Amino acid sequence: MDGNEFSLTIGNLLETAADNSPNQIISYKGKENYTYRKFYERVNSLARALVELGVRKGDRIGFIDWDTNRFMEAYYAVPMSGATLHTVNIRYTPELIFYTMQHAEDKVVFVRDEFLPILERAAEAFDFVEKWVIYSESGKFKTILPNSYNYDDLINGKHNAQLPPADENDVATTFYTSGTTGLPKGVSFTQRQLILHTLGAAASLSNQPVNLGSTDVMMPLVPMFHVHSWGVPYIALMKGMKYVLPGKYDVLEILKTIKSQGVTVSLMVPTILYMLVSHPEARNYLEGANLRVVIGGSALPRGLAEKARQLGIQTTTGYGMSETCPILTISTFTSEVQKLPEAEQFDYRLKAGVPIGMVNLKVVDKTGKSVPKDGKTIGEIIAKAPWLTNGYVKDEENTKKLWKDGWMHTGDLGTLDQRGYLSVVDREKDAVKSGGEFIPTLIIEDAISTCKGVREVAVIGKAHPKWGERPVAYVSSEPDLKGSDINKHLEMLVESGKIAKFWIPDEYIFVKEFAKTSTGKIDKKVLREMLSSSQ
Amino acid sequence: MDGNEFSLTIGNLLETAADNSPNQIISYKGKENYTYRKFYERVNSLARALVELGVRKGDRIGFIDWDTNRFMEAYYAVPMSGATLHTVNIRYTPELIFYTMQHAEDKVVFVRDEFLPILERAAEAFDFVEKWVIYSESGKFKTILPNSYNYDDLINGKHNAQLPPADENDVATTFYTSGTTGLPKGVSFTQRQLILHTLGAAASLSNQPVNLGSTDVMMPLVPMFHVHSWGVPYIALMKGMKYVLPGKYDVLEILKTIKSQGVTVSLMVPTILYMLVSHPEARNYLEGANLRVVIGGSALPRGLAEKARQLGIQTTTGYGMSETCPILTISTFTSEVQKLPEAEQFDYRLKAGVPIGMVNLKVVDKTGKSVPKDGKTIGEIIAKAPWLTNGYVKDEENTKKLWKDGWMHTGDLGTLDQRGYLSVVDREKDAVKSGGEFIPTLIIEDAISTCKGVREVAVIGKAHPKWGERPVAYVSSEPDLKGSDINKHLEMLVESGKIAKFWIPDEYIFVKEFAKTSTGKIDKKVLREMLSSSQ
Repeated sequence: MDGNEFSLTIGNLLETAADNSPNQIISYKGKENYTYRKFYERVNSLARALVELGVRKGDRIGFIDWDTNRFMEAYYAVPMSGATLHTVNIRYTPELIFYTMQHAEDKVVFVRDEFLPILERAAEAFDFVEKWVIYSESGKFKTILPNSYNYDDLINGKHNAQLPPADENDVATTFYTSGTTGLPKGVSFTQRQLILHTLGAAASLSNQPVNLGSTDVMMPLVPMFHVHSWGVPYIALMKGMKYVLPGKYDVLEILKTIKSQGVTVSLMVPTILYMLVSHPEARNYLEGANLRVVIGGSALPRGLAEKARQLGIQTTTGYGMSETCPILTISTFTSEVQKLPEAEQFDYRLKAGVPIGMVNLKVVDKTGKSVPKDGKTIGEIIAKAPWLTNGYVKDEENTKKLWKDGWMHTGDLGTLDQRGYLSVVDREKDAVKSGGEFIPTLIIEDAISTCKGVREVAVIGKAHPKWGERPVAYVSSEPDLKGSDINKHLEMLVESGKIAKFWIPDEYIFVKEFAKTSTGKIDKKVLREMLSSSQ
Repeated sequence: MDGNEFSLTIGNLLETAADNSPNQIISYKGKENYTYRKFYERVNSLARALVELGVRKGDRIGFIDWDTNRFMEAYYAVPMSGATLHTVNIRYTPELIFYTMQHAEDKVVFVRDEFLPILERAAEAFDFVEKWVIYSESGKFKTILPNSYNYDDLINGKHNAQLPPADENDVATTFYTSGTTGLPKGVSFTQRQLILHTLGAAASLSNQPVNLGSTDVMMPLVPMFHVHSWGVPYIALMKGMKYVLPGKYDVLEILKTIKSQGVTVSLMVPTILYMLVSHPEARNYLEGANLRVVIGGSALPRGLAEKARQLGIQTTTGYGMSETCPILTISTFTSEVQKLPEAEQFDYRLKAGVPIGMVNLKVVDKTGKSVPKDGKTIGEIIAKAPWLTNGYVKDEENTKKLWKDGWMHTGDLGTLDQRGYLSVVDREKDAVKSGGEFIPTLIIEDAISTCKGVREVAVIGKAHPKWGERPVAYVSSEPDLKGSDINKHLEMLVESGKIAKFWIPDEYIFVKEFAKTSTGKIDKKVLREMLSSSQ
């Protein structure tokens, strides 16, 4: 071999990480610890075992587990075997789990034993699965699934198979994203796209105030079935960071692990942050940890960010989606924002942020023209970057809607301010349009969240004969809160110029709890159904 | 256009930077300031002008200038026009300048007016140059060079030419690297390689203690004709940093600019650092600046690093070469080193460091086997990364020596310690071999540099009937220093186990000044000639 053939593959990333940081640790809940070197050996063994099981280039391998070191092994081993890792969304209903596995045509499926009952109920329907690999922490399991192997036997076995030559354009991962309507859609990413996302995100997560560096201890709290756990399983190893996997999420266990493992950085949706800071023992574990948290998935309500700050947690926000690998923006500070007083900087931490390196992002009106950078004018967010999905799996129609004129159309509505910071104000489909004007539900939700006594809130549109639509707020709160209290609070915000008067909801509906989507967001689809069936 | 076609091109990097940080500043000595947006417009205009001048894909464009904003414009505009930027080494002799331009077949050449005399002396020999573009800060110039244009007219003109479609595999840059023997050899890099180097270096320069972030103010002091100014003209814009260009190096001017522009980060060879910290007014300008400096090109002598520290300058070290784009390693801290006391960390700052993201690096013996990670065993440094040059221009023989079995053979000798830190101990060709054992001249030079009164030092080998070679030290020093003083100092270091007894030079030759190479290193070739002619 002559010349430079070191391409952008997962295998090259891992080999480099293991050579550069051989003694760095990957820890499963602080209980099972591997060095990068040992991890590399295990991954290599698993990749070879896959080849010996008959896995060939382009085959899909399903993986069903919590956030474990096994899942982490698959993140590397499956692409290195030439196959595509299908991270199965375990928060879906059994029917949707089956649908996505069938749609992906998973040839081999890895399952944690506690998920066996879901699959065994419909064992015969999984006739497209040739082999099952089962993992049990107890070491023992029983299954009626045919052709099943033990994960531990497989990875600890001797495997002489050669790995196929890696190509950076091999499809490395696939997973399904649920829209607000219709069946989940599959997206996929090549090895090259993953490496570029890793490099781009690492280069930008290092900016103030996230300051991500190789001496950090990382424990993401973003499900590994969901958009590569935001890319951190690759970013952390490339940077040589200590990496901690939380397993199945248990709030108290997570708090304990943060303290015992010295976790310094995490990523999560607002709901998880809410659960952490609301835990009665939170202060015991978080104080002194100086944890930095990057929030994504939905907007970070100011009230929650303030509560986190009181516990010493520094929050910033990111924006992206399943189609974008996912990171597009992070609310790190530009030179301009760095010079602002801390209170103003806090406002910027709550915005979706600035595009990361090599992400080109615009907010455009219906004609495709950029809207003014005034922090007010709402348009659709469109983006280009070298790591966005090429399209939906077996779905030309939606792919055509996604990519127009070389830009990915996110379907999200946002504003850009004069300093270039993006705010995501709504999903295009969630926006309430009243009298021809958008009412940005994320902003009005954020405003309501700062009213004392409010726990969670979601605003949706209700058909209105005069205005087309008017906003209705669903609220969970402390016992005594009334709609009139919220109204009073919002009117103050109208007076101070923070929101428009016509954004104030017509109605408040108090609920005990919200139905959540598989990624922990409030499920507005469910609320809409409730509203329409009550009319 | 459907799907994701946002490839790794210089044009995409610049467009993204201008969109993301439109108001950030590129400053020429603090005197001429452009926003990124304005810079983008100028670059686009220049690229179109080049196309209108007849430049076509793959043509080489020579550029002869100090570190100016014009040169910076060419860094972007030439690749965007489809051509290759040849950064001409202005520190070469006129003969070598001519040789490299002829070898590269420069079709259009940009020249700063003060370099005209060198070219005009041999105007007729430059028959391969079709067009000259001349820049003068005074706005006026006279030349006998045929077909010459004024840079300002060109960039300020109206150009309607379309830029050719960019391909990430287009060759973007070329320049010549002088070995210790023979004529300079040309290396070249594609747009993809430059973008990947940008991403990889940005991701790792952010680690402790360099901490490079978007809020830094960057002024590299690495000539722009030399290995992409270590990549910073691309890294800084991708990250949205304020960028300062120093023009022709003038130590007092540089010190003033550091203060007036609030420079926080720079990169340079040890000689430049020596000149900065030795300036009588250094303290006035550097105190309070909290400057972080990354040193490369040669090893950083401990004495110099300590002197810099006393002025508040934090140093780290990098390693790379023309063939590697250039960055391979930086002495940022791993988790392990981060936990050490500051005094021990200081030792690590002086090492060449750890490989940056996606760089795989080994130190191997003659059989290609990795040497033990003991910080002692010396071997050749070999590397892989997605941004190493594919080979030498029109030179298959040397390309074959460079790339063997998929690894780039650097020809540098080094050690790896148990924490994975590289130390470069010598160029293979510079090493002194005494009694069959290597004497690492960089280590012995470093040891001599810590002797009070020593300014600069270079150790070379002298033929010896018994030992094959023995080391001889050339030293510039304070007036009273004697060889016996240095010997006493080195014997102390032998006793403390820092160096081996047989490394102590047989002879000290005191010189007033050293001849330097074009990159500011002591020219050992000249010393060898002096030594052999005196024998």
